[in-house]
Amino acid sequence: MKKVKLVVIGAGSSYTPELIEGVIKNYEYLPVSDITLVDVDMGAEKMAIIFSLTQRMLAKANLPIQVVQTFDRKQALQDADFVITQLRVGGIDARIVDEMLPKSYGFIGQETNGAGGMFKALRTIPVIIDIANEMAEICPDAWLINFTNPASMVTEAVLKHSNNRRVIGLCNGPINMLHKVASLLDVEVDDLFIEFKGSNHMNFITKVLCDGRDRTREVIDIMNASDVDELGFKNVNNEQFNKELLWATHCIPSSYLKYYIKTNELLAEQDAAELTRGQMVKNIEAELFEKYRDESLQEKPKELEARGGSLYSTAALNVIRAIYLDDKSIQTVNVMNNGAITNLPNDVVVEVNCVMTSAGPIPLCTGDIPSPAKGIVAMMKDYETQVVTAAATGDYQKLIAAFVFNPLCPSDNNGIKLVKEMLVANKAYLPLFASSIEAID
Amino acid sequence: MKKVKLVVIGAGSSYTPELIEGVIKNYEYLPVSDITLVDVDMGAEKMAIIFSLTQRMLAKANLPIQVVQTFDRKQALQDADFVITQLRVGGIDARIVDEMLPKSYGFIGQETNGAGGMFKALRTIPVIIDIANEMAEICPDAWLINFTNPASMVTEAVLKHSNNRRVIGLCNGPINMLHKVASLLDVEVDDLFIEFKGSNHMNFITKVLCDGRDRTREVIDIMNASDVDELGFKNVNNEQFNKELLWATHCIPSSYLKYYIKTNELLAEQDAAELTRGQMVKNIEAELFEKYRDESLQEKPKELEARGGSLYSTAALNVIRAIYLDDKSIQTVNVMNNGAITNLPNDVVVEVNCVMTSAGPIPLCTGDIPSPAKGIVAMMKDYETQVVTAAATGDYQKLIAAFVFNPLCPSDNNGIKLVKEMLVANKAYLPLFASSIEAID
Amino acid sequence: MKKVKLVVIGAGSSYTPELIEGVIKNYEYLPVSDITLVDVDMGAEKMAIIFSLTQRMLAKANLPIQVVQTFDRKQALQDADFVITQLRVGGIDARIVDEMLPKSYGFIGQETNGAGGMFKALRTIPVIIDIANEMAEICPDAWLINFTNPASMVTEAVLKHSNNRRVIGLCNGPINMLHKVASLLDVEVDDLFIEFKGSNHMNFITKVLCDGRDRTREVIDIMNASDVDELGFKNVNNEQFNKELLWATHCIPSSYLKYYIKTNELLAEQDAAELTRGQMVKNIEAELFEKYRDESLQEKPKELEARGGSLYSTAALNVIRAIYLDDKSIQTVNVMNNGAITNLPNDVVVEVNCVMTSAGPIPLCTGDIPSPAKGIVAMMKDYETQVVTAAATGDYQKLIAAFVFNPLCPSDNNGIKLVKEMLVANKAYLPLFASSIEAID
Amino acid sequence: MKKVKLVVIGAGSSYTPELIEGVIKNYEYLPVSDITLVDVDMGAEKMAIIFSLTQRMLAKANLPIQVVQTFDRKQALQDADFVITQLRVGGIDARIVDEMLPKSYGFIGQETNGAGGMFKALRTIPVIIDIANEMAEICPDAWLINFTNPASMVTEAVLKHSNNRRVIGLCNGPINMLHKVASLLDVEVDDLFIEFKGSNHMNFITKVLCDGRDRTREVIDIMNASDVDELGFKNVNNEQFNKELLWATHCIPSSYLKYYIKTNELLAEQDAAELTRGQMVKNIEAELFEKYRDESLQEKPKELEARGGSLYSTAALNVIRAIYLDDKSIQTVNVMNNGAITNLPNDVVVEVNCVMTSAGPIPLCTGDIPSPAKGIVAMMKDYETQVVTAAATGDYQKLIAAFVFNPLCPSDNNGIKLVKEMLVANKAYLPLFASSIEAID
Repeated sequence: MKKVKLVVIGAGSSYTPELIEGVIKNYEYLPVSDITLVDVDMGAEKMAIIFSLTQRMLAKANLPIQVVQTFDRKQALQDADFVITQLRVGGIDARIVDEMLPKSYGFIGQETNGAGGMFKALRTIPVIIDIANEMAEICPDAWLINFTNPASMVTEAVLKHSNNRRVIGLCNGPINMLHKVASLLDVEVDDLFIEFKGSNHMNFITKVLCDGRDRTREVIDIMNASDVDELGFKNVNNEQFNKELLWATHCIPSSYLKYYIKTNELLAEQDAAELTRGQMVKNIEAELFEKYRDESLQEKPKELEARGGSLYSTAALNVIRAIYLDDKSIQTVNVMNNGAITNLPNDVVVEVNCVMTSAGPIPLCTGDIPSPAKGIVAMMKDYETQVVTAAATGDYQKLIAAFVFNPLCPSDNNGIKLVKEMLVANKAYLPLFASSIEAID
Repeated sequence: MKKVKLVVIGAGSSYTPELIEGVIKNYEYLPVSDITLVDVDMGAEKMAIIFSLTQRMLAKANLPIQVVQTFDRKQALQDADFVITQLRVGGIDARIVDEMLPKSYGFIGQETNGAGGMFKALRTIPVIIDIANEMAEICPDAWLINFTNPASMVTEAVLKHSNNRRVIGLCNGPINMLHKVASLLDVEVDDLFIEFKGSNHMNFITKVLCDGRDRTREVIDIMNASDVDELGFKNVNNEQFNKELLWATHCIPSSYLKYYIKTNELLAEQDAAELTRGQMVKNIEAELFEKYRDESLQEKPKELEARGGSLYSTAALNVIRAIYLDDKSIQTVNVMNNGAITNLPNDVVVEVNCVMTSAGPIPLCTGDIPSPAKGIVAMMKDYETQVVTAAATGDYQKLIAAFVFNPLCPSDNNGIKLVKEMLVANKAYLPLFASSIEAID
Repeated sequence: MKKVKLVVIGAGSSYTPELIEGVIKNYEYLPVSDITLVDVDMGAEKMAIIFSLTQRMLAKANLPIQVVQTFDRKQALQDADFVITQLRVGGIDARIVDEMLPKSYGFIGQETNGAGGMFKALRTIPVIIDIANEMAEICPDAWLINFTNPASMVTEAVLKHSNNRRVIGLCNGPINMLHKVASLLDVEVDDLFIEFKGSNHMNFITKVLCDGRDRTREVIDIMNASDVDELGFKNVNNEQFNKELLWATHCIPSSYLKYYIKTNELLAEQDAAELTRGQMVKNIEAELFEKYRDESLQEKPKELEARGGSLYSTAALNVIRAIYLDDKSIQTVNVMNNGAITNLPNDVVVEVNCVMTSAGPIPLCTGDIPSPAKGIVAMMKDYETQVVTAAATGDYQKLIAAFVFNPLCPSDNNGIKLVKEMLVANKAYLPLFASSIEAID
Repeated sequence: MKKVKLVVIGAGSSYTPELIEGVIKNYEYLPVSDITLVDVDMGAEKMAIIFSLTQRMLAKANLPIQVVQTFDRKQALQDADFVITQLRVGGIDARIVDEMLPKSYGFIGQETNGAGGMFKALRTIPVIIDIANEMAEICPDAWLINFTNPASMVTEAVLKHSNNRRVIGLCNGPINMLHKVASLLDVEVDDLFIEFKGSNHMNFITKVLCDGRDRTREVIDIMNASDVDELGFKNVNNEQFNKELLWATHCIPSSYLKYYIKTNELLAEQDAAELTRGQMVKNIEAELFEKYRDESLQEKPKELEARGGSLYSTAALNVIRAIYLDDKSIQTVNVMNNGAITNLPNDVVVEVNCVMTSAGPIPLCTGDIPSPAKGIVAMMKDYETQVVTAAATGDYQKLIAAFVFNPLCPSDNNGIKLVKEMLVANKAYLPLFASSIEAID
């Protein structure tokens, strides 16, 4: 079996130990020989801690995997087979700005939605495009597994604005929904086939098949019978979708849809919260890295689960193993639509089931996305494509036009003021917008 | 020249004298011989006033046009050439409910948008479908010129759910925008060719051509240089679109778009207003009918202009005359898309330029609707199609699913509560929803 | 494991022993408990022979499978899990007419192409629609596996004109191309992933992947280096596609495409042949049934291979087993396009790779079909859809319009004469065309 | 009124006097001040004759129009308003080769169809692209009115492969069909609205409206009642379309469709003909130029009609006048589809009704092109797009792939041989194919 080299960019992330655990668990099928951890100067301290923990984990597992850390990205990409991007441009502090500034205008302030998500895209996209272009040159057969949010926009940016087509956008949302549905129905994950339609964080389960039988309504009934959102994520609020709505639409939306159809509820929750999610994560991470530092720790600590990345490692390793083995398994990933959803444009990124091959993911045809999901997904894809272009080219006008039409912007005047303020606040990370920012300042 | 019979349904409307004025002005090209005024019992008193005023206007114009009034719609349709629907199911009081109930939830309360517009569609669509079906039987060659709002949904309902394809949805919005642009540029209306893309009340001027020269940017500059919304309508608010936005999008939206991108501003205005637009209109109408009653009045009184229906008559007569004369003139009307806007479905109603022929309007190809208009129009068409189906079939589940995803519904729970309350309040006009309403009550 | 009942309609076919052999080989994974053989009176003698041979084969295999024969189709469908249609309306003699009459006009006379294929569709479609409708009533969960040619038209007919959506069109063409490519490259079938685009018998291999590596050009080079058509079928001619053409198109067409791009060569071959393929098959079948009659025969005789149905049984059992096991394997079958080929209509049947589930096949997205395949496939799908409608409704005008525009009809006048002559010759099998035929006679 | 400068490229054409006659007739509405005649050296003698005749015609008409002749194309384009291309690369002799070589293989040999049409495209496209690019630089506001065949491919080439979008492809086919239908119905041309769908020389009348009434069937009945092809052109054969076919399709195809559905009949006629159409035209032209030379001739001679360009001048002047006057008249021209025919790609050139404006033609929406026209037009557009690309880039492989799949190529081997022979024969005119031709030679 051919040996495998993994490169982890943004290796100083608190998620890395989960990834390493996955590598260890999958070693039998995926003979990793090299792991190269990469980060930027700003992440040096964290990466050192992670590097050391990784060495201890691999030692305990007794596996012949070589691990190195480096700040030289191009060097790291030599001979790479899989490159995992989990970087966060600007770090957790930039996220907190993404949350606080919109909030100050009475807008939703959130990591991947509204103005916050848009600025995360603006900071991230040029960096990932650079990585993709470097890969096209240095390791053209390698696959870029992108975990950095907003996953759909980042993936679309690489596919449209880089020289590299070997990219897969990955989010742990679908796999979590799958596991939760399995638990609700008390069946094995492998007995389920769940049809996902939509875009990352704007996704809908439109069908739950169990041994060929449609059990969608049953899942909705169970969800409605409970008092908490059984498919929801910790980082969205705890209120449920309206029960009548789930029955009426006969589909199960991603929790993130709440930002759009429970906007008032989430604005109220945002106002009431003492800390933003980013501020909480900052505290959790500080504690986690304290744990990681502990020389006696030789495995992923339980506390990592509070961080929110449930099944992150499973999702990543499933995809990598499938490509490596050409195993034709079905994974839910972010790819060009290309006919998968017939009433969306072919050239936008969607999150759908794909057959995984060594030549990449092939989406399964799902037909039309049904109303009312159709309308909001069509709108959000139009928005995302504009932001992607703005991010890749530094187009200020496209940026404000896109944002004003985003459903989370309830005022053109304040929306544009907010965008300007955020441009200035993110100045260090937005070189393409330098002249626009200068004009504002 | 073949004589022409016009049937006006909802003839008790305060607008009717404007229509009659148009008939008189166009007599040379359009030899109307018969005008039949139709209304329901509830409108008897108003129709009588209008009937009498019409007789005086025609007498003064000295034209051999016979006018009759009747409550027997089927009788009226005999030998009709053009049927104009300007009815308002539930009258102005139903409109005030459409405004007040959403407002009580902190939602936009408006005649053609949000919950108000949706209930206007629910009340209107079954009635217009009935008229269209009667026409298909009694006067199959006649054209239905529908003025009743929401024009796009009503037209789509007839085209999809009746046996009649000879329907044109008409709104005075585009013709007013055309005249205002002509005035801003100080040119003749006939020298302009304005490209409209979108849907009724969700329309965009994407190009202003004057003698073949593109003067779009110039119009935007003039609008931005002024302090009032030069293309706006009295029934929307007076605040302008953000200037940077107009430059960035390089197109001019219908004023109604403000409900979507200036939602907070319009909610504030709504809160501050003493009277709703419907309440104001009720007062204006009362005064108007006082004037109309005056036996010495022989023409349309100037005060009608305050009512809001500017150029209503011009729009209607342009279309009727064009069909009658097969004159191939270009009018902006509501028709099936059918390729006119390439990135919208073919089977939704759009408001675009059409060549008018005796066999009906033929839309002009406009290509793609550009972002960001594309996103919001795609979303609204998806919403409208769902409401149309719900209205034509009494489908409660489709109705709530549609409304929760409408961008003017910021809360699924409150949105569904509001819909239920409005269903109950509109009980008398929604026979198809009888069992759903009973279940709510 | 749930027991499985198979129903074989047209069981008197000489192919049946191959199918039985497949059932025996797959018993471990697919526990068949009942096989019901069905045929019409005309096939009684053959079915009796097959029935007896089947009993001997099962006895030798020592498997607890019950086999019965019947002429009562509705009875047979009770509790069916899979219904395999391999019937031939009019028998081999009708096929010979399909070959001889076109030939007499100087047209291609062939089983699935041109006038011959069209009349096979006309005879077959109403019968299969009846079966599909009966299944929808009697065994609504069962799957119809249709082998009767022309597979694409028959499948489209069921999907558009019956009440049954649980149908899969199957042809042994793709699996044979797969096996031949494996043999050319000297690799295992399981190591290959072959992208098929197009329609049955008008299909193109557009990509050959082996362990994720594109080896398409290599296959073409090997084909071009040989003197015989390495991927061709016995029932098409032996001449190769032009070598320059294969290099230029960079894809490998189904042998049946020769009828369209080597028309003159095949017309010459047709003229030179002493016997038509149908006449040869008639002789082969007579000999085969002699063998089958032999009471000592307890397995499929080798001579069956000369009949042309290579891997027929493998294809059938792969599909049935996959559905039974919900095994998510990839099979190349005939299904509604539904986005699989992005530049063909969504509502035409195509032959593409599908993931097989218990809820049916899900096509894989393939993107656009490239030129020049695009043009001819688009044309043929338009033709087929017209023939399907004509066959299901008895529409004579649609029929002649379709055929005159078929590329194998080089003369409108002679084409229409030929269609009339064939209608008369097929009178017994075309009840829907009775009045048209009467008008011709 | 702004003065107008016309540039005629390929001015040595025998059609030019017809064009001049049109200019004279339209002077009232279209104040032409300058006509510049342009040709290449090879056409010097003919251009001189035309130049002199033009001077005499203008003198007789007593109009203040200046006419000059030149070989300097760039000079000619200075200040141009309209550029008319009616050039013939290789002259009439190249056409005769286009006819004779295919004939020698038993293929259709014709000016705009099959191999002949393809080579005309190959010779012409690079020249017209050059002209279009020069115009974009020298006279960017001018319109290119292209008459050179194959009109559809040439227009698509300019729109896709030049820097100039101000091009209109024009053919006298539609206007002749319009006039002939008017004559059959005995009505005025202005009373008719004819819906054309398809591509140049592959066009279909799908509806004949007269004062809003559908009279399509009546036209077909009249055609079928006569013994000659009432809508046919002299340069196609005289046999009628099959009568049953016209009734069945309920549309009227362009005569050129006969090459595809009466192939055998036209091959027979081709075999029987002593002279090709090109050879006849060569003789006609020689006689015409004898007439033109006659110093006493001061107008277009009647004999020009035998040449085949009936209404050529009317078509050209209608378009030029409409653009000049921004008159919004409806003309049938070749433009990007852009939604006009909903079931063809948006980015192929179609021949449809357009509203003419100073900013160019705007196609009218026609909806789907119906079967069976849909299939053949889809196929031919795919073919044409490939030839356009091959012509613009010199791609030999695309060329042979395209031609083998053309329905007029009945043999891949002979088709490729023919293409090679024609490449060599056209060597002087195909600089982009120089290396491919060398490899063949």
